[in-house]
Amino acid sequence: MAEHDILAHSRSDKVGTPRFLPLDISIFSMEYRQKNPLKCHILPFAHRAGGEMITIEDFAKIELKIGEVLEAKRIEGSNKLIVMKVDTGEERQLVAGIGKAYSPDELIGKKIVVVTNLQPARLMGVESHGMLLAASDDEGGLSIIIPERQIKKGSKVK
Amino acid sequence: MAEHDILAHSRSDKVGTPRFLPLDISIFSMEYRQKNPLKCHILPFAHRAGGEMITIEDFAKIELKIGEVLEAKRIEGSNKLIVMKVDTGEERQLVAGIGKAYSPDELIGKKIVVVTNLQPARLMGVESHGMLLAASDDEGGLSIIIPERQIKKGSKVK
Repeated sequence: MAEHDILAHSRSDKVGTPRFLPLDISIFSMEYRQKNPLKCHILPFAHRAGGEMITIEDFAKIELKIGEVLEAKRIEGSNKLIVMKVDTGEERQLVAGIGKAYSPDELIGKKIVVVTNLQPARLMGVESHGMLLAASDDEGGLSIIIPERQIKKGSKVK
Repeated sequence: MAEHDILAHSRSDKVGTPRFLPLDISIFSMEYRQKNPLKCHILPFAHRAGGEMITIEDFAKIELKIGEVLEAKRIEGSNKLIVMKVDTGEERQLVAGIGKAYSPDELIGKKIVVVTNLQPARLMGVESHGMLLAASDDEGGLSIIIPERQIKKGSKVK
């Protein structure tokens, strides 16, 4: 995303309406909701999220970058952990729990998305400097996250 | 990523070494660094990151989900902003600043990655309930971020 997210959170819209309307959807009739879906779905999202809403500042703390996988191999004794050497503008080693869905060979050369400013961790004795992003569903499906188009490694994701 | 990241941050490795070694790379000779790259790149990453390191708890606050773009159109008066209807397990409207790189038509049907628990914002008077993730480089290149494999909309990304 470009700079607009910052702008959006630092000024109101031109007509002066408060940005976060204290709407409770239950005050609207079903007919009104169907005719005015945008006016009615502000609070429900916050409710349904279950967890807390975050600010753009919370999100900005997270550094996400495109990395290219240079090397990958399984960690001995684990059927899930793969250790990789990844170039995110600087080479780093990271460990990812995607070994049931991916073989090391099919990862090599792929562009991935990495959280690059996470405190180092150690998994089964192996240092990990960052976290690869992957999507997983409730049926055991798993997919790494990649850029749709060619883009330089080290590119920021936001 | 699977649960391993939580584990990694809640226990030490089995030989009892502190997880975050207070290494200063400058104490090593270049020869030692080349032979032992893993031992020598712990602190430099933290230094080079520039910004602050974050904890796994900081990252866990951010809710990321796979969304499918149902509708997309340009926001009048902007050459950059596109408003989309996205299904992230629930339909939501979001605004993204990717209009210079993408036409609305090529977005429809795509699976994207959305920050789903961001406080709503208003961009040029249009409500945005979430933020699409995209990678951008310093030469004006921009790419949305997508799952590499088929995966259900609403899937969590971590």
